[in-house]
Amino acid sequence: MKKIAIANHCTTKFSVDDISIESLLLSATKLLFEQTKNLDQKDIDAVLVSTNENKKYLSSVVAEMSGITPRISHSVESLCNSGTNSIVSAYSYIQAGLADVALVVGAERINSPGQVLNWDVSRGEFKHPIFWGSMFTKAHKRKFGTTDEHLAYVSAKNHKNAQDNPTAYTKHYSIDEVMSSKRLTDDLRLLDCSRPCTGSSAILLASDDVVKKFTDSPVWIAGIGQKTTSASFTKNDLVTLESTIEAASQAYAMSKIKPAQIDVAEIHDAFTICELMVLEDLGIVQKGHAGKYVMDLYNTNNKKINPRGGLIGSGHPLGATGVAQVAEIACQLKGNAKKRQVDGAKIGLVQNMSAAATSSTVLVMRT
Amino acid sequence: MKKIAIANHCTTKFSVDDISIESLLLSATKLLFEQTKNLDQKDIDAVLVSTNENKKYLSSVVAEMSGITPRISHSVESLCNSGTNSIVSAYSYIQAGLADVALVVGAERINSPGQVLNWDVSRGEFKHPIFWGSMFTKAHKRKFGTTDEHLAYVSAKNHKNAQDNPTAYTKHYSIDEVMSSKRLTDDLRLLDCSRPCTGSSAILLASDDVVKKFTDSPVWIAGIGQKTTSASFTKNDLVTLESTIEAASQAYAMSKIKPAQIDVAEIHDAFTICELMVLEDLGIVQKGHAGKYVMDLYNTNNKKINPRGGLIGSGHPLGATGVAQVAEIACQLKGNAKKRQVDGAKIGLVQNMSAAATSSTVLVMRT
Repeated sequence: MKKIAIANHCTTKFSVDDISIESLLLSATKLLFEQTKNLDQKDIDAVLVSTNENKKYLSSVVAEMSGITPRISHSVESLCNSGTNSIVSAYSYIQAGLADVALVVGAERINSPGQVLNWDVSRGEFKHPIFWGSMFTKAHKRKFGTTDEHLAYVSAKNHKNAQDNPTAYTKHYSIDEVMSSKRLTDDLRLLDCSRPCTGSSAILLASDDVVKKFTDSPVWIAGIGQKTTSASFTKNDLVTLESTIEAASQAYAMSKIKPAQIDVAEIHDAFTICELMVLEDLGIVQKGHAGKYVMDLYNTNNKKINPRGGLIGSGHPLGATGVAQVAEIACQLKGNAKKRQVDGAKIGLVQNMSAAATSSTVLVMRT
Repeated sequence: MKKIAIANHCTTKFSVDDISIESLLLSATKLLFEQTKNLDQKDIDAVLVSTNENKKYLSSVVAEMSGITPRISHSVESLCNSGTNSIVSAYSYIQAGLADVALVVGAERINSPGQVLNWDVSRGEFKHPIFWGSMFTKAHKRKFGTTDEHLAYVSAKNHKNAQDNPTAYTKHYSIDEVMSSKRLTDDLRLLDCSRPCTGSSAILLASDDVVKKFTDSPVWIAGIGQKTTSASFTKNDLVTLESTIEAASQAYAMSKIKPAQIDVAEIHDAFTICELMVLEDLGIVQKGHAGKYVMDLYNTNNKKINPRGGLIGSGHPLGATGVAQVAEIACQLKGNAKKRQVDGAKIGLVQNMSAAATSSTVLVMRT
């Protein structure tokens, strides 16, 4: 098996601006070229575009307008999990010997068609994702005594972390502000929710044969796990995410890394409850104890979990999210995260998922 | 490197019917399960959906409704080249050790949004693909003396071959009927064009470790070539398809197969001129001689090229086309093509492309 690395990464400023999907994809690609030493268009064997907005043939539009003539070029869609699927796909092309260098670029507009699914609509009044977020929250509160205050710490922590992330678009909120934000359901308030936005992010992957051309500090993909099951609200147990547990198990086995060794992680906090459930299902904290754990992180200003602010703090441009998560962990492991830097981070993890954890991806990365 | 095979394949009846994209995907998946011995939902590690119609998260919808809980699940879009991209992606997942068995299912509705691209529209009056088809035709006529009659033989041959393809939806046309069909441009008539339709096709790929569970006659993927350049009408030379030449070169090198060894091929005849150009650019016939070659195929009832009828004879459901091409060559190499069978076919080729050969894929397959 080849060793495969993240050579470089970039993320554009997330916003609520009206920018075309093509412009978003091209600005991330341009930024990646500007910031990567020795990168020539001829180096790139694969261009994979991650988005929920199908304007047809976007990967070839990106390739042509960037002067790239790759072997492989297509778009990948798996809802919020699109970006991480694209990165695993790029990894596979390199591992299979069909590419040495792959560009993955993800983008989404704030009005992405991915926000409400056809199968959501088929549930009528129950169509918005906040309803499964609320089911999970109610179940977790009942079983483990999780409180509204625990949830508020997730949101306040991620909004606080995002203040040191120049690509995030949200502002700082105190615990009190979160807890007094508009109540949307019995269990969730406005500031418990991530918000759609406009943004893009790009990653350059390369095999160990060629990565040194582009960077002196490659970040290696050490473990990959993926699983698609059914939406977790269809399970009897509403407090675990089956696909995340399975994906984590695969990624830990492949990387021979244990949860206790993870120095820094970006995880999918579509709602505050998701961060708690994911922390537990990744084995980073014991089941039912994540609320207390996040309060401690906040109170000690520990940025280990969602240092860029996660989805709640940074915004959630669907097709870009998974790419931006991987970009953040690569940045952390390269030691380039400035005010967000987790000191001495050597081993990182990305967890991404979609549609109430119908599918999950877990990546373990290391220096 | 692992050996990777097509274990089984199926194609639904192409039509102009109003069938939902979900139904199309599910009916091909169901048919594949019915026709594949020992195939259990638990066997499938990857579900890749090929389509230009993004209804969001279709791969997970297919997985959930088929009782499959794969590791990998996403949709792939690369216009007409989507199906072949999906198959190369599935190959890569297996080669990378992330999957042993992959389901690729492609589908399109007759009203696919992939038919006219945003970048086509940006060309104003010149937006329809028939215009680049006409440019190629005029250039080929001028340079090589290709005639309207040569073109008519492509169409008549493919319509004739399609009469033995139970999934094709078109009827038989004589040379005279093709040559008197409605003139659409200076150089192309209605029956020089493939037509959009509704249909789906599925492929099961497996590593050599497990393929024997499903079939006694696996068909191996021996060579893969892919290239994305720019639309071939942007080149000075309007008589060659640069991306097809490059993809073929890769696929021949990987498989150590020469063009003269190809027993049977499915190639992308979006317009009649495409079949001539592709035959030449694959090296199956000398440049400029394809018109005469196709006349000979027709007159000797030789089904070697486009035995299922190609796109012109079968219909062109964009996301399904590449999958159906591979299905046909697998069927031929298994010796199951009945009245379409090319006797003794052991080595086959698929060439697919999109948008005036902006991108091409070439696969070499063998028993």
